Amino acid sequence: MYELGVVYRRILRADRTAADGLAVLGTATVHEAMGRVGLLQPFMRPIHAGQQVSGTAVTVLLQPGDNWMLHVVAEQIQPGDIVVAAVTSSCTDGYFGDLLATSFQARGARALVIDAGVRDVKTLQDMGFPVWSKAISAKGCIKATLGSVNIPVVCAGQLVHPGDVIVADDDGVVCVPAARATQVLEAAQKREQLETEKRARLASGVLGLDMYQMREPLEKAGLRYVG
Amino acid sequence: MYELGVVYRRILRADRTAADGLAVLGTATVHEAMGRVGLLQPFMRPIHAGQQVSGTAVTVLLQPGDNWMLHVVAEQIQPGDIVVAAVTSSCTDGYFGDLLATSFQARGARALVIDAGVRDVKTLQDMGFPVWSKAISAKGCIKATLGSVNIPVVCAGQLVHPGDVIVADDDGVVCVPAARATQVLEAAQKREQLETEKRARLASGVLGLDMYQMREPLEKAGLRYVG
Amino acid sequence: MYELGVVYRRILRADRTAADGLAVLGTATVHEAMGRVGLLQPFMRPIHAGQQVSGTAVTVLLQPGDNWMLHVVAEQIQPGDIVVAAVTSSCTDGYFGDLLATSFQARGARALVIDAGVRDVKTLQDMGFPVWSKAISAKGCIKATLGSVNIPVVCAGQLVHPGDVIVADDDGVVCVPAARATQVLEAAQKREQLETEKRARLASGVLGLDMYQMREPLEKAGLRYVG
Amino acid sequence: MYELGVVYRRILRADRTAADGLAVLGTATVHEAMGRVGLLQPFMRPIHAGQQVSGTAVTVLLQPGDNWMLHVVAEQIQPGDIVVAAVTSSCTDGYFGDLLATSFQARGARALVIDAGVRDVKTLQDMGFPVWSKAISAKGCIKATLGSVNIPVVCAGQLVHPGDVIVADDDGVVCVPAARATQVLEAAQKREQLETEKRARLASGVLGLDMYQMREPLEKAGLRYVG
Amino acid sequence: MYELGVVYRRILRADRTAADGLAVLGTATVHEAMGRVGLLQPFMRPIHAGQQVSGTAVTVLLQPGDNWMLHVVAEQIQPGDIVVAAVTSSCTDGYFGDLLATSFQARGARALVIDAGVRDVKTLQDMGFPVWSKAISAKGCIKATLGSVNIPVVCAGQLVHPGDVIVADDDGVVCVPAARATQVLEAAQKREQLETEKRARLASGVLGLDMYQMREPLEKAGLRYVG
Amino acid sequence: MYELGVVYRRILRADRTAADGLAVLGTATVHEAMGRVGLLQPFMRPIHAGQQVSGTAVTVLLQPGDNWMLHVVAEQIQPGDIVVAAVTSSCTDGYFGDLLATSFQARGARALVIDAGVRDVKTLQDMGFPVWSKAISAKGCIKATLGSVNIPVVCAGQLVHPGDVIVADDDGVVCVPAARATQVLEAAQKREQLETEKRARLASGVLGLDMYQMREPLEKAGLRYVG
Repeated sequence: MYELGVVYRRILRADRTAADGLAVLGTATVHEAMGRVGLLQPFMRPIHAGQQVSGTAVTVLLQPGDNWMLHVVAEQIQPGDIVVAAVTSSCTDGYFGDLLATSFQARGARALVIDAGVRDVKTLQDMGFPVWSKAISAKGCIKATLGSVNIPVVCAGQLVHPGDVIVADDDGVVCVPAARATQVLEAAQKREQLETEKRARLASGVLGLDMYQMREPLEKAGLRYVG
Repeated sequence: MYELGVVYRRILRADRTAADGLAVLGTATVHEAMGRVGLLQPFMRPIHAGQQVSGTAVTVLLQPGDNWMLHVVAEQIQPGDIVVAAVTSSCTDGYFGDLLATSFQARGARALVIDAGVRDVKTLQDMGFPVWSKAISAKGCIKATLGSVNIPVVCAGQLVHPGDVIVADDDGVVCVPAARATQVLEAAQKREQLETEKRARLASGVLGLDMYQMREPLEKAGLRYVG
Repeated sequence: MYELGVVYRRILRADRTAADGLAVLGTATVHEAMGRVGLLQPFMRPIHAGQQVSGTAVTVLLQPGDNWMLHVVAEQIQPGDIVVAAVTSSCTDGYFGDLLATSFQARGARALVIDAGVRDVKTLQDMGFPVWSKAISAKGCIKATLGSVNIPVVCAGQLVHPGDVIVADDDGVVCVPAARATQVLEAAQKREQLETEKRARLASGVLGLDMYQMREPLEKAGLRYVG
Repeated sequence: MYELGVVYRRILRADRTAADGLAVLGTATVHEAMGRVGLLQPFMRPIHAGQQVSGTAVTVLLQPGDNWMLHVVAEQIQPGDIVVAAVTSSCTDGYFGDLLATSFQARGARALVIDAGVRDVKTLQDMGFPVWSKAISAKGCIKATLGSVNIPVVCAGQLVHPGDVIVADDDGVVCVPAARATQVLEAAQKREQLETEKRARLASGVLGLDMYQMREPLEKAGLRYVG
Repeated sequence: MYELGVVYRRILRADRTAADGLAVLGTATVHEAMGRVGLLQPFMRPIHAGQQVSGTAVTVLLQPGDNWMLHVVAEQIQPGDIVVAAVTSSCTDGYFGDLLATSFQARGARALVIDAGVRDVKTLQDMGFPVWSKAISAKGCIKATLGSVNIPVVCAGQLVHPGDVIVADDDGVVCVPAARATQVLEAAQKREQLETEKRARLASGVLGLDMYQMREPLEKAGLRYVG
Repeated sequence: MYELGVVYRRILRADRTAADGLAVLGTATVHEAMGRVGLLQPFMRPIHAGQQVSGTAVTVLLQPGDNWMLHVVAEQIQPGDIVVAAVTSSCTDGYFGDLLATSFQARGARALVIDAGVRDVKTLQDMGFPVWSKAISAKGCIKATLGSVNIPVVCAGQLVHPGDVIVADDDGVVCVPAARATQVLEAAQKREQLETEKRARLASGVLGLDMYQMREPLEKAGLRYVG
């Protein structure tokens, strides 16, 4: 249950090295390294292809059609942060555009992840400010009702605590709990290494059936070949 | 309630200077300048990124799976027009492709806004003919049932009269009533100017909280800071 | 009703010349040439714009959240094939990524058409491996339950038999039955030729109303002109 | 484009006899009698089955998550009215519950048609107050932003003017323009009569193929019988 | 790929005893007895609760917004049949109402399963004619374009051949291939019997964990108990 | 980020009096009493109308198409509990039917709230076992992959901790944190009392405009009356 009308100024951010290092590994690898948990729902899409970032979450809870709290959260941003925005009920309005992006960028934010709509998407691309959202809409917002800043929020079905690491790319958005960031980074790097070797073998024509030794379990499961 | 089987040949188009001038301002600014009304629903998306147009609406009402009236509306197009197409019930079929686009372009149309599907989208991009639609589908249409041309239509939830100004870009599609086009242009230009100044201040690190003097109303609304 | 747990090794592939020749004609033309049937539902989208392929279908039936059978189908791929994947119930998980793509590509597959999600989409683009899917998701799959390979499957609402020709581009995905591939190729080529002539006439300003002789049937249907 | 912040007190209501008489004919018959136009989108569903009403529209435009104007529109209700509520952007919050229903009922309203959510649906049923909505949600609303009352609104894709007749039942909601209400009533009654006769013939085993003399046009269209 | 413009008069209906006997077992049991295949997508819902039927499929392919072929299929209905209707592209219009239901009922049809909309739902309930559909809409249809009757169709994602057994209840709609009907009936009856015993044991407090001997496989899979 | 493969046996359940007392107040009143937070997304619907329950949450995390953990959670149920089930990715399969319901009921469970599908809905109604779900589907599940029991889960967008109070009725499902249950019960009861008085006044014809003293703030906001 959300606590409304409060701004937590001090949050415990994840280890910076881990927070920075996860971007290059990408969401698919990180998600696997965590045991297939932590992914935001796949309707969260980048507004432009090719963006790949990671950073520490500052969170904000918004009200439907109201972006007042985005101005409040701006002050809490530190360099290397990614703003994660949830809304108390489903809304596709354009909560965020080039002015707020200018402010967020000036504060050092690396990206916005918002379970709602954004606008000025062409300018955002020109500015190089990455956004993942569930909608694009020119409709602006009012500034009338309080939400909160830096409380745990559910964004696109995923619980995000302030300070968690957010990893986002063309495949989606993953949340890594702050306390596990370093461990996940190591696991993901190890996984990445293994995948490089596997890729080479598959490229040479080796089948996954053989590389992963699947033939026996498939046969046990009852797979029949005909013809 | 729609009048079926009729083509209105004479429509009152909005002031040309206003109709042409709104494109550069973009839908977000225009939408704000109108008081946050006039936006088509955000499921209307450009088939390619980077298109930005404005023009006067010629409208057409279509039947499900039937694009006969698109040939009828072609004759009513004048240079600087944008065709706005509604359907009597929800349909994602491909009503419009490269042949109709060639014809529309030859008549001077600037774009198509259609609450249905289109096809040949790669060719449309090569031709430089912008389209906003709710779907892309290779499925073609029959030519069997009458709709109407240049009646007021509801397109993606928005009432559009023939002659209104349509503004469309990557953020969506806005309809400006013909009678208000000049006034909206002025309001939007003023807004644009103000935004340029604001952008500079925000880029320099000034917070929206201070620039918009939000701290006092937020405190009055009960916002608490912790930590 | 699907037969589970079986792999058909011998399938009758469509005529290679037809299977290869349909790509250039595109889905809209092919769909028309077949009499407006054979299209997969329009929620099937290319993960990147500009891809245009055709090839012979090898089919695979998957279980929700389980991509085991994609490794099984890999072995059945021959150069010039396109893998068509259906799922027993709706799922958006990422069934396919760069490792499987490497393997598919090594086997000679031209593309994947999957009624589910995929991941590593940036890498897939770098590899030049085209995919049409209904979702993009970083979430991986387990390998626990059997489906089948090379049985007839319903993919995005369309029945696809192994060996059928698949044509896919930015407008969607069309399935051409193997037995009709050559005939459809000829019909589509003829249609393409006619369209080239029509395009020239429309570009010169001739109206579809006149070119298609629609004025009389429209009048008979009761169309009235006002003003 | 909506005019915001205004309440029109005097509206021209449709002929009372027509407004009252259309309920019994039902939406399917009325919709046909109008030439298949006037229907709100089919996502508008009754919150309980078996309701069948007609009445004159008083309209209200709401803001997302804000039901302030429902209190304003209450004062404008006259006995025999149906409140038609639109929202400036898509929202499923519960705008209306048993308290507002008590007030609406005390003013003589027959029903609510709302392109958003409602709540207290069990109590609404006990009260016998019919509602058609696109969602049910326990989430309440704020009272902060102006909309308008008795302006033309687009509700679920249909333009509704104040004073129009609304007909609603288990099949959906239809809007009949005030000026055409009497004529539509007559046409619908005539249609209803014809249907009674047709029903008897079909029940006796006569086929629609023969009753509507479809065999010849089907043959001309090329229908082939096999076996 | 659909064959258009053809009516197959002679179809091979499934064994009558099996076709009649499956209703009482219900879709969940039948679906399990078939190995978890054959289910239409779950957006197919009964228009009224409590209906439970089975029968032999006569199939019909419709065009968007066009119900002409429903009159053609009526003639092919035999007592004990269920009409299964597919559409060439997604459409929610009301293809079927009380007149067609009267005719279908007079011919001995037991139900309609339609991947589109229906209307007159209150009258259909009064008539006792069961319908499963994906939408309810008062919008009627034209009669202009040919589909086909008694060809294999894909309805809500499931391939249905004429003569197959359709089982439908509040849980959805299942298709049983004609050739397997008797075998599935036996398997479903056996399953039903076993479930009765299991139900008694579970009601007495025995846990599924013990009844299905799951504790060991759960432990092997790594399940840990804490506290 | 979910912890997989663990069952927490000891959970701190909310105060029993509060957990039991909230049912009669209903979700709309409870949701308001909490300050408009705690509601699950409105796609969660009761499988039958008229159910109204409250109880303490035991939670379970499921995998797509896999209901193994529902057997594990059964053992952790105590009388007065409501099972809250989340899935790691979106799935509409029928996870729960009459057998599991028999077991849950035997353990003293009051209801199931599941962000997925259920089946045997007619039998569930006959048994008097209430369920809120996002889908109904006859499709059963496998038992192959571990989730967890009594970890915090996000169900339909709402974070639910084991031991929290769940309130559910025809308006939806609300989660009340265990620590706040007693306070929310009191606030809801007070609210309910006030509403009774308000209802009487509104029924007598008093307008909300006057009862809530809205006329002055509306005027200040700029509302104009015309006519």
